[in-house]
Amino acid sequence: MDVYISGIGMTKFGKSKDPLEMMMAEAAGLALKDAGLERVDGIYIGVMNVEEFVGDSNFAALLADTLDLTGIPSTRVETASSTGAGAFETAFYAVASGHMKHVLVLAGEKMTHLPTPQTTRILSEAIDRSERRYGATLPALAAMVAQKYAQAYGLSLRKLEDILAQVAIKNHLNGVQNPHAQFRKHITKKDYLKSRMVSYPLRLYDCAPITDGAAAIILTSQPARIKVSGIGHATDTSAVSHRTSLTSFQATKEAAYKAYTMAKVDPSEIQFAEVHDAFTLFEIIGTEDLGFFAPGEGWKALEAGVTHLKGKLPINPSGGLKSRGHPVGASGLAQLVEIAWQLRGEAGAGRQLDRADMGLGQSIGGLGNNNFVTLLERTDRKRVVKEGWRPADHPKIKPPRKAPPLLPEEGVGIVETFTILYSTPEGFLSPLALSFVKTKGGDRVMACNPDYRSPKELKLGQWVTFRKREGLYVFEKPTLWKRFHDRIKDLLHLSM
Amino acid sequence: MDVYISGIGMTKFGKSKDPLEMMMAEAAGLALKDAGLERVDGIYIGVMNVEEFVGDSNFAALLADTLDLTGIPSTRVETASSTGAGAFETAFYAVASGHMKHVLVLAGEKMTHLPTPQTTRILSEAIDRSERRYGATLPALAAMVAQKYAQAYGLSLRKLEDILAQVAIKNHLNGVQNPHAQFRKHITKKDYLKSRMVSYPLRLYDCAPITDGAAAIILTSQPARIKVSGIGHATDTSAVSHRTSLTSFQATKEAAYKAYTMAKVDPSEIQFAEVHDAFTLFEIIGTEDLGFFAPGEGWKALEAGVTHLKGKLPINPSGGLKSRGHPVGASGLAQLVEIAWQLRGEAGAGRQLDRADMGLGQSIGGLGNNNFVTLLERTDRKRVVKEGWRPADHPKIKPPRKAPPLLPEEGVGIVETFTILYSTPEGFLSPLALSFVKTKGGDRVMACNPDYRSPKELKLGQWVTFRKREGLYVFEKPTLWKRFHDRIKDLLHLSM
Repeated sequence: MDVYISGIGMTKFGKSKDPLEMMMAEAAGLALKDAGLERVDGIYIGVMNVEEFVGDSNFAALLADTLDLTGIPSTRVETASSTGAGAFETAFYAVASGHMKHVLVLAGEKMTHLPTPQTTRILSEAIDRSERRYGATLPALAAMVAQKYAQAYGLSLRKLEDILAQVAIKNHLNGVQNPHAQFRKHITKKDYLKSRMVSYPLRLYDCAPITDGAAAIILTSQPARIKVSGIGHATDTSAVSHRTSLTSFQATKEAAYKAYTMAKVDPSEIQFAEVHDAFTLFEIIGTEDLGFFAPGEGWKALEAGVTHLKGKLPINPSGGLKSRGHPVGASGLAQLVEIAWQLRGEAGAGRQLDRADMGLGQSIGGLGNNNFVTLLERTDRKRVVKEGWRPADHPKIKPPRKAPPLLPEEGVGIVETFTILYSTPEGFLSPLALSFVKTKGGDRVMACNPDYRSPKELKLGQWVTFRKREGLYVFEKPTLWKRFHDRIKDLLHLSM
Repeated sequence: MDVYISGIGMTKFGKSKDPLEMMMAEAAGLALKDAGLERVDGIYIGVMNVEEFVGDSNFAALLADTLDLTGIPSTRVETASSTGAGAFETAFYAVASGHMKHVLVLAGEKMTHLPTPQTTRILSEAIDRSERRYGATLPALAAMVAQKYAQAYGLSLRKLEDILAQVAIKNHLNGVQNPHAQFRKHITKKDYLKSRMVSYPLRLYDCAPITDGAAAIILTSQPARIKVSGIGHATDTSAVSHRTSLTSFQATKEAAYKAYTMAKVDPSEIQFAEVHDAFTLFEIIGTEDLGFFAPGEGWKALEAGVTHLKGKLPINPSGGLKSRGHPVGASGLAQLVEIAWQLRGEAGAGRQLDRADMGLGQSIGGLGNNNFVTLLERTDRKRVVKEGWRPADHPKIKPPRKAPPLLPEEGVGIVETFTILYSTPEGFLSPLALSFVKTKGGDRVMACNPDYRSPKELKLGQWVTFRKREGLYVFEKPTLWKRFHDRIKDLLHLSM
């Protein structure tokens, strides 16, 4: 059974004084009104971590009550930072099954009321334990991806910095036109360079902000102006260090393949996209993983203006997570609300795209291991599937690099990538150097060292030693054995 | 599209040293092997609160990885203590939609490693904030339901005690035959009476235990030995005090109505059921809400042996939550595993029922506000829908008693029901008297008082005064004004 969108709504994103359930009720009320409905057959609630952010559980029932829809089935869905997209997919199947006619998908998060180190700790629970216990945060892992990306495609760090700044500047520029966005201000390269380093080479302006907000969509089996044409969903290894590639996300490729196949479209037919820019580089990687541009070339399209609002393939016309804000449970659904606004021609002067018959939303859960691709299209412009259309080749899944059962207690290797993490989670000293060390046997070892306080002390490809101490690997440049021994006890005391 | 069960598996329930994901992998491995599958098209993970019980989020992705099923879509579903049933329903729609052929439903929880007051606090987050801030726990609210039930149906407290003991004794007797049960021991009325009071009148033996465990089911669109005939799901008010009835659960009635209607069966056609006996009385109320027995008469069927293993309508042949154990996220799915075993004739000597063509699972989320009813039946015994079959009348939904916008700051009323809570959550003094006070205007006010240390000091229907102090109502027998004033500050200090 085909599934359509008959109602959309969202709150302004930013810092809110309202309790989470009231923000969600506001978004739901707008969507229900938009659909002309007072009741639905089911409710799917997307919240990433209400337990720790607001101290409630049993949130699906609370929302049914808050909406005065007591009695109606209500289910909470969660896939980390792609939760909004996950709730949408789940609701899609409920409608597609024919068992429900109208369904409310409602996603939100409230985050701004907590101190940042606590928020960082809560968000870091999405990271595999084998990496989290080193103090790794999502920005730290994203920073390691960024350094690796620059090296893989021969970009100097200055060039990388320039590209990342361009993503932030473009998305802020788009966000100025979005009344629902958290930040509605132009930023310049100078502003970008002034923003503090969160985890080298990523600055504050490379990271989506901490945000309160909610979004809602009504799905229905009755034909409406917008159809859900394709949905793809895929996972990847829990630990980033277990992946074959550090410069692309297999889960996005796989999800895109499924969505394109379901909708029978090629990436070239997509007219605009909302891409999960939790970190600026992820927008670039996203446009490559989605098949818009070749690997390593997404930044060229950005530089050429292709992904700008007036370009051939606008990316994040809403301002993206960077400028609209990133209430983690809501973002995946807010992307789809933006696409629906664009498809309906309701995005408003300044932001409305000329060509908006088919849009794509891409949402990332965790550090790229629970990802979604969703395709929405207008139903009043009949799309003809190209004759002889067949899906592109299935994205090759190389067997993931599994952690070998026994890594050596110590050894030598090279720094595959690293970061200096300045914004550490609760309980970890700042700054903290984190590295993926590649061993002679080809294994990847996560290792840390709080002695390196500047990225200038390290470089990719350099030889280091690593040693396990009470379950944690510590890496070091070989000339520093003595200092290493002096510091190791302090370090382990802090990190365990 | 019809949906079938092709594989089932579960761990032994109890106290486990394994990490949660390994327990869940064990259950999943058994179910996959049972179905003869190595891969599935999707995974639905049911965990109630991994964030606080084990400190992880992004659990759906972690499980896909742990199962070596990286790449496959994996989604976490949660509906409080009915989470296992919620994951099953969600997966059911995915298969029924035709978008997935084989789906793994996998539910679990790990709880025994934490101190009980911490576990109590975590579980209490499922209670509406308006009641939780008084120190109300799930046992406390269940105890208030129990006192009200006894009064409503003219049972003395001694009689109530006897009935509740019979539920516990029956379910322990069944559990002896279940190799997966946490407790495999007979208990006597004497044992029951010796068990400590948790929240008057409920004793430890009235409450399901704290448990580690996992269960798994494979759903498929390919015809198999067991079919999912009916699914019903409904919510109720977040706060118990906002309900019209305290002696039945509207969400169970509504869910049962939907499940029966979908399957086209009458309650009288159900041959056995797994009923959510998180508290002994809930089994009795469940059998009434499901339409097996008239309101207030469920206990008579128990006394007459009807619900015993050898009775006409065995309830909880597995031993129920009471004896099998209650890993909160897993129980709703473990019920369905038991029903599938019974339908296949694989429950084993001593526990296998003679008549097992159709079974029912009933699962309660929170204190009765996110409930499920699921019907499973054998496909090799052709059931004929009775000629002229039509669903029973829709269970009347009286508009829920909404909290009025402004309750008086103080007043007089009668004790509608109360409990003395001995096992208080972290941060609350023990014992603590909690009461629903009915005002002259007919409103229901939750109120507390830590001065009443014995249930003998209070009785249902007695007049009390209540006063609001810093957002909390305190109730008191009218003669104690002085003492009240002396204690109020201490109390408020402790409870805020």
